[in-house]
Amino acid sequence: MTAGKFITLEGGEGVGKSTNLDFVVSRLRARGLEVIATREPGGTAFGEAVRGIFLHQDPLRPEAELLLLFAARVHHLREVIEPALRRGAWVVCDRFTDASYAYQGAGRGIKPGIIDFLRDWIQAGLRPDLTLLLDAPVDIGLRRAHQRSGPDRLEREDSAFFARVREGYLALARTEPDRIRVIDADRPLVLVQAAIAAQLDSLLDGCV
Amino acid sequence: MTAGKFITLEGGEGVGKSTNLDFVVSRLRARGLEVIATREPGGTAFGEAVRGIFLHQDPLRPEAELLLLFAARVHHLREVIEPALRRGAWVVCDRFTDASYAYQGAGRGIKPGIIDFLRDWIQAGLRPDLTLLLDAPVDIGLRRAHQRSGPDRLEREDSAFFARVREGYLALARTEPDRIRVIDADRPLVLVQAAIAAQLDSLLDGCV
Repeated sequence: MTAGKFITLEGGEGVGKSTNLDFVVSRLRARGLEVIATREPGGTAFGEAVRGIFLHQDPLRPEAELLLLFAARVHHLREVIEPALRRGAWVVCDRFTDASYAYQGAGRGIKPGIIDFLRDWIQAGLRPDLTLLLDAPVDIGLRRAHQRSGPDRLEREDSAFFARVREGYLALARTEPDRIRVIDADRPLVLVQAAIAAQLDSLLDGCV
Repeated sequence: MTAGKFITLEGGEGVGKSTNLDFVVSRLRARGLEVIATREPGGTAFGEAVRGIFLHQDPLRPEAELLLLFAARVHHLREVIEPALRRGAWVVCDRFTDASYAYQGAGRGIKPGIIDFLRDWIQAGLRPDLTLLLDAPVDIGLRRAHQRSGPDRLEREDSAFFARVREGYLALARTEPDRIRVIDADRPLVLVQAAIAAQLDSLLDGCV
């Protein structure tokens, strides 16, 4: 049995994470793999309760944001992600700890050392095997996000915030280029998905 | 103007924190002080939302408990406790960070170093000026707590858990005897309150 792999999709608002998550899941299932699709915050009953507070509690202080995310994350890990990986399933997750560095770290100004501490406590050594960072200019992503129904608390942030988030993500990718693959999402979907497929195939080929 | 002081009441279930909090508040107000009475988790709209999850989400993992408590605490500090102390009011709080050490630390087994880290990040140097630890044998407290309406998630724990919590509190008091005053709560209320009054008067006398 192939061991399960943990794939995360990251990126700012409106970069196409949902659409491309479906694509990743389909492509893996077409290989006959058991695939769990999940998201953060969320993925468990507790996580979804936290998500409700997270998206609508206003104001929510940066420290509280980060703490809520890790509270949801510990349930998500213990109840969903870790059991799936142990039994050999693949897990595809819409946002994970990189988002904490990008949003609460780069976006809100929380020091990376705080996030490191929480990550090491809650995750121990667990990291994604592959992270697909969907990257697009902030104005393009926000335009797409605003075409959807009413903006949540995060989507009401200004573009300077999202510029910091984007730069935070790109800085992470520079420090971990093997794990975090930047996908130019400012292209027709077929090209974005060809780039994603290439990354997935490379990971799959390493597993057989 | 006398600077505001921060007083916390701590203790296990059924030791009489609510009744004695009212007593503390009345005694301070009788001295003409502005007094804010508050509680954890709670004290803000966000904190009360967290309190609802905290008391009823089952199961709730120990790490998530601790993270939720500190998420509520950061709002409570920034919106209620710190502004009140700055303007010279006294704050009397039903449970604070000592409860995290007793319940999530001693009770649930989270290492004190984790709690130290979160405390130092969220509170910086802020500590209570006086902590009244109401102490009673576990079986007496639980009997009192169970006479109240339906038990919440914490109150359904077994007596071994509450024995660890009690010992955790007493251990804290041994390490900080000047701040944490142990009040024997297994006595008639009039004697408990005489002991509390003596501690309050000592703090008040030091302020004039």
